[in-house]
Formats: sequence, C-alpha cells, structure tokens
Amino acid sequence: MSTAPRPLADPRRQGYRILHEADLRDYMAEILDVAARLGGEPASWTITEVGDGNLNLVFIVKGARGGVAVKQALPYVRLVGESWPLPLSRAHYEYLALSKQAQLAPGLVPALLHHNENLALTVMELLEPHIIMRKGLVAGTQYPGFVGDITTFMARTLFFTSDLALSAAEKKEGIAAFAGNHALCKITEDLIFTDPYRIAEQNRWTAPYLDALAAELRDDMELHVAISRLKLKFMASPEALLHGDLHTGSIMVTESQTRVIDPEFAFYGPMGFDVGAVLANLLMAYFASAGHERAPGERAAFEGWVLETVEQVWSEFARKFLELWRAGAAGDAYPASLFAGEKGAARLEAERQAYLQRLFTETVGFAAAKTIRRIFGLAHNIDFELIADPKTRAISEARAVRLARAMMVETGTFRTIADVTGAARKLRDWMPELSG
Amino acid sequence: MSTAPRPLADPRRQGYRILHEADLRDYMAEILDVAARLGGEPASWTITEVGDGNLNLVFIVKGARGGVAVKQALPYVRLVGESWPLPLSRAHYEYLALSKQAQLAPGLVPALLHHNENLALTVMELLEPHIIMRKGLVAGTQYPGFVGDITTFMARTLFFTSDLALSAAEKKEGIAAFAGNHALCKITEDLIFTDPYRIAEQNRWTAPYLDALAAELRDDMELHVAISRLKLKFMASPEALLHGDLHTGSIMVTESQTRVIDPEFAFYGPMGFDVGAVLANLLMAYFASAGHERAPGERAAFEGWVLETVEQVWSEFARKFLELWRAGAAGDAYPASLFAGEKGAARLEAERQAYLQRLFTETVGFAAAKTIRRIFGLAHNIDFELIADPKTRAISEARAVRLARAMMVETGTFRTIADVTGAARKLRDWMPELSG
Repeated sequence: MSTAPRPLADPRRQGYRILHEADLRDYMAEILDVAARLGGEPASWTITEVGDGNLNLVFIVKGARGGVAVKQALPYVRLVGESWPLPLSRAHYEYLALSKQAQLAPGLVPALLHHNENLALTVMELLEPHIIMRKGLVAGTQYPGFVGDITTFMARTLFFTSDLALSAAEKKEGIAAFAGNHALCKITEDLIFTDPYRIAEQNRWTAPYLDALAAELRDDMELHVAISRLKLKFMASPEALLHGDLHTGSIMVTESQTRVIDPEFAFYGPMGFDVGAVLANLLMAYFASAGHERAPGERAAFEGWVLETVEQVWSEFARKFLELWRAGAAGDAYPASLFAGEKGAARLEAERQAYLQRLFTETVGFAAAKTIRRIFGLAHNIDFELIADPKTRAISEARAVRLARAMMVETGTFRTIADVTGAARKLRDWMPELSG
Repeated sequence: MSTAPRPLADPRRQGYRILHEADLRDYMAEILDVAARLGGEPASWTITEVGDGNLNLVFIVKGARGGVAVKQALPYVRLVGESWPLPLSRAHYEYLALSKQAQLAPGLVPALLHHNENLALTVMELLEPHIIMRKGLVAGTQYPGFVGDITTFMARTLFFTSDLALSAAEKKEGIAAFAGNHALCKITEDLIFTDPYRIAEQNRWTAPYLDALAAELRDDMELHVAISRLKLKFMASPEALLHGDLHTGSIMVTESQTRVIDPEFAFYGPMGFDVGAVLANLLMAYFASAGHERAPGERAAFEGWVLETVEQVWSEFARKFLELWRAGAAGDAYPASLFAGEKGAARLEAERQAYLQRLFTETVGFAAAKTIRRIFGLAHNIDFELIADPKTRAISEARAVRLARAMMVETGTFRTIADVTGAARKLRDWMPELSG
C-alpha cells in the first residue's frame, strides 16, 4: 500500500471529462483486454447507463462475447446535483479498496479490469445474473450461501488490515493512504451520526405517523450521547480497512454467489461499523417483511431465515476472525512472545474472546445507528419504501426503531446475538402508537 | 498542516552530512538572524556538543550577544551506534510538532529559529538557566510553576488537536502528516509495551535484587493482557497529537519557567499516554526520593510536594481541558446541535465528566507502563540510577513497581488521582522482599 499512487488533487484539471455513450465506446475500444472480453466490433456493443445509486454513473457494456460494468465518479452527488460537490478522488479510494479486498477475499468482489485515475473511471467484471441483495430480500428470497460468503469477506478484510495481522508501520501506511477520503467519511458522519437526531433539511420520515417518534428521538439525550460516542469511534478508531457502506444494496447475489461492490466509502475505521451494517440491514429486512406480506404468516419461513442469518452472520464472523487470529497473528498487537506456554496460551485465548465481546458490543451500537438513519435521515431503503401503505410502513419502521433505540442506549443488555434476534422476534407483532 | 512538506524519503541522498564544529560555525554564519542573535565574529563563537540523550547531536553555540541550541539527527541511535539505524525524518516530525506546540502553547516550548530538512537540523532558542527537570527532582528541588505550565501545555496541545476541536477532515490530515514517524513509535512499542515483559537482550534491572520480581512480571499473564491492551491503544487510537515522550527529561525548568523539548516521538495517539508520562515520572521521583535522603525524613517536604503535584497535574489538566471543551468545541465530535437547551447542556456536561473519567483510567494504565519500562527495560532514569547503593535502589524500584502493577491490572480501583497518591504514600516505607 505504501507505493500506491496518491490521488490527484483535482483530476478535473488533468483530463477529466464526463463520458457519454459515444466517448465510452471509443475509449473502451482502445483498452485491448476489455475490447477482447466484449468481442465483436465496437459499433455493435450495447451501452446502457444503469446507475441507480446516489453518486455515480454506471454503464453496462455488452458485446458479442461478454459484458463489463463501467463506473465513473461525477464531481458532485448525482442524487442532488452540482450544488453538492464531491471529490473525484473517491474513485481512487474505491479502486484501492477493491484491489485490497480482491487480494484478501478473492472471488467475493468483482474482478477489476481497468482503472483510469484521471477519468475517475473503473471497468469491472459484469455481474450476471446477480441482483442487488436488497431487492431479493424485499421479494422474500433466501440466500443460503450468503452467511458463508459475507463472513469470509468481513473476517478476512478486517483481520488482515488490523493490528493483529500488520506491523504498526504497515498499519499507519494504510491509514495514511485512505486519510484523504474524508469527504466520503463526512457524508457518513453527517447523515448517520448527526442529522437524524436533530432538525435537518434533508431528513424525512413516514409522516405523519412517525412525527411524534421523530420528535422523541430529537429530544432523547441518552440517545444523543450514545450516537455521539459512536460518531467519535467512527472518526478516531482506525482498527481496520472498512468497506464503509456494507448494506444489502452494496451486495450482489445469486442463490449461490455473493459479490461485495462499491467500496468508495473505504477508510480505516472501527470494525463494528461494517459488521453492524450487515446486521442492521438484515434486521430491517425482517421488520419490513410484515409490510410485504399479502396474507398473514405468508413470509414466516423467510423471516425465520433472516433472523437465523443475523445470528449466523455474527457467530460465523466471530468464529472465522478468531480462527485467523489463532492461526496467523503476525501483527504487532498481542505479541506471541508475551503469551508463551500453556498458561499464556489460555490467557490469550480468553483475551481473544473478550476482544470479540467488545467488538460485539460496538457492532450492536453501530447496527442501531445504521437503522435509525434509514428511517429518519436522508437515505431510505426499499425494504421499507416499497411498503405502499404508509401506515403499514410506519408500523414496520417503528418496530425497527424501538429495537435500535434499545440497542444503542442499553447496549450492554445485548450480550449475545440471540439477545438481538430474541428482541426482534418479540417486536414482530408489537403495535406502536402512531401520530396523525 | 495539510500544506506541510512531506519528509524526504532518504535525506542522506540530498545533501545530508553530519556537522562537526567547523562546519557548524560556517553554516550558522550564513543564517543571518541566527548570526545576529549570536553576535560578534563567527570565529569567536564557542561551540560545545552536549547531547546526553540517546539519539541525536546537540550543540550549544554562544556568541558575544547570545546563544542558541542546535539539534541534528543522526541516521542511527546514538546510544547504540550505526548497527541500529533510525530515519532522519524524525527531525522533520519534531519540527512539525514543535511548530504546532508553539502555536497552541506559546511560551512553553523553545522558540524555533531555523530548520534544515536536508540536514535534519533545527536551531532553537538556548534555554538558560533552565535545567532538565529530572535533575532538579533528584536534587529535591520544588518547582511551584510546573503544575500550571505543564497542564496548560497538555490541555491545549491535546484538546486543540482532537476531534473535539477539529473537523474530521483536519484531524485525518494531521494523522496522515505524522503517520510516517512510525520508526519512532516502534521504539515505544518495543521498549515500553513489549520488552520489559519478556526476555530481551536489552533489558536490565538492579540485579540480583530484582531478579525474582523481573521473573514474576515475565510470568504475570494478567499484566501481559493489560500491557497488550495499552499497546493496541497506543497503536490504534489517534485521539490527539502527542508529544510522545513527555517525561521529566523532556522538560526544562527554572523555578518560574517550564519548557517542553524534544517532541521527536510526536504522532497522533491516545491522550493518556502523554498525561500518564508526566504522572509516572513524578511518581518515580517520589519513590526514588527515599534513596536520595542522607537522613530519614530529610526530603519529606519535597516528597509531599511531589505527591501534591501529581494530584494537581491531573486535576488542573482535567479542569483546563474541560474549560476548553466548554468554551471552544468547534470539532465534529459531540456536535452542539445535539445538545441544545438546558437538558441537553446538562447531559453533555455529564458526558464531558464521563469522557475525562475514561481518560483518567487510561492515563493510570499508561503511567504504570511508563514506570515498569524504566525499571526493567533498556532506558532507565537517573531518579533511580543515581541511588548509589543498589539494594537501596532496588527497594525504591520495587515500591514503584508494586504500585505500577496495581495501576495496570486493577486500573478500575483507581477512581480518582487521590487513590493513586494514597497508594503511593502507603508504599513509601513498604519493605519488599528482594532476591540475592
């Protein structure tokens, strides 16, 4: 990582331009291995802009032989427009993170085919027939391979970029390499850790039903202390290289395959933020499920699978992380020479368990933060949004918020992942008082 | 800090040479403001090499009008020789830290007069008649101005480089600016947080009297877990820009003045490491004092002053830090908008107290680590070393170690600084069992 090129201060000055279909065709024709993968004449390629994210242009290019995905960063937030500028350098950090993830968790991220720093553009393997996992969850689809894949991804990317696996010097180089991605971190700091708890122009929620709940959160000082502690941890605990935005919209799946995409929020932060993101988005899928059923109990099997998945995501992640630690601790933390002999080995193993318990507690807090922002902040998710009846949606959302509030403020009462799923199960049919 | 020049990868290639007396005279003659400050003809200047530290060359240059101090980094550890190389870039980080400290705590560091990146050389104000504080403490001298000065230095340098005062972007830029100083951090990681707890060639202690105690520490797995947690915190908690080596040998004093010198270990780390360093070195001065008395009780007033100073260093630091937080929290942590109104203000104030309580606990742990390394590691201090009779010395050291072990392993039982000084007072005349 130490030899990675630093991002350009302002790539726009050095040949950046937004690529449209015709430019893209010419550009791709000159990248020989991409052109070969597509096959046939460039004129025959189909190019479709499919970006449905908030920030970037995404093209799918298909030729006679195969397809690729092309992602280009825009110098502003796509969702909002030029009034909200955002550095192109995020494409550099995304590329850097993707390269590292490909090395640490092979086969679990899209293959990188080409990167152009000046154009803030990356060409990747086209994932077909994968779909965005969140869409599958809304439809009630179960993904039996998901637990195995996502826990391998998290355990390996987090462990191998932590002080348990790296020398302090390598770790500091990694931190410095991603320090410049602070504009993307700032989005998280504002939209997740601040705005949902105060009056902010960009907030929205299912009105009028959640008006009173929104006001309650804005007035809940225990919650404000809890979210502020999490925010500080997010800003100042560079434990490992995070994906930084690991929700079910950043995961593409088939029944047997999982690919993690879009790590443009990558930076060195607290591990619990990534793990909590996965858990939170599964829990939201669980609470949203009641809103998607056409007949009572119709989705019971799916809901059971979701909670089982929540439990296994934590337990399998913890198991794999511990396994890596036991087998390959080459980092400067917890040096083996201090834990020699049988007594040392036993004490170190107890400390590993304690470390994972601390990480669990932080994960629970971050999962809560990721939930509340999707219900009261700027960015919502289709799990809830696709529940057409707003009152039904508000009921599902209020259940999720009730659990999240407890997870954030009474974090210590959640000692195991079964405490979390047990609390979720109890709230499945709880009827909140709504406004309006 | 974002525009600061990055250190040269290998300054030796770009004009580095070790300056000897004659070169130094010619060099200084060409720096007009330094030459003017010295006064008279360059040939008349006296140049004396006085470096008694472990790493660098230090010259005192005096002319007809005044004097300056010149510090040049060597490409190796002076104490050991060329077999232990050490990057010259540390002079860059020292300069960067000194500049920042001068800005944040004016008058409490030596004035910077000149810096040459290629030569790894810095010219500073000559501190006269200041002496190294540790020497004064060995002699039993009280410094009534010390508490006020050191707590201002720590409160201001730590607060204003923390997330409480900076935006997350500024903070990350600061972290990145110092990330390259990892070779100096590594010295701390090895010599403070690892070696004293295992067999290591460079360890030494007052043998044979402390042989059994040394073996006990090497076998004490609770202590090994505690020191490993502190090491991890040191490596991965960039809370603020630390001095990084804030012992009483890095502080020069007169009865009314205090100057903090030598911040070449500066990096973004946990605040408790700096505060703990000051407390630990005062506590060692306290325990060493018994070994310096020629008649029982001779130094009682001094010892009383030392413990009072320990108490006031913490309480005044905490008071000033809280005052800065209340008055000037412009950082991204704990945003004011989440703590509006009377209820919010009261809750935030309680959280500030809780923050300081957490910092106190970490400070206690780091103070313990800084103590043990001076008794069993490579670098000892004259507080103990100048106790001529080794058995008397070992008794003082064993008392300090007993307190340090409790502070590190039973940290939670030390709730206030009076718990620390109370425990120290109880150990003043405790007679340890010695080996040999």
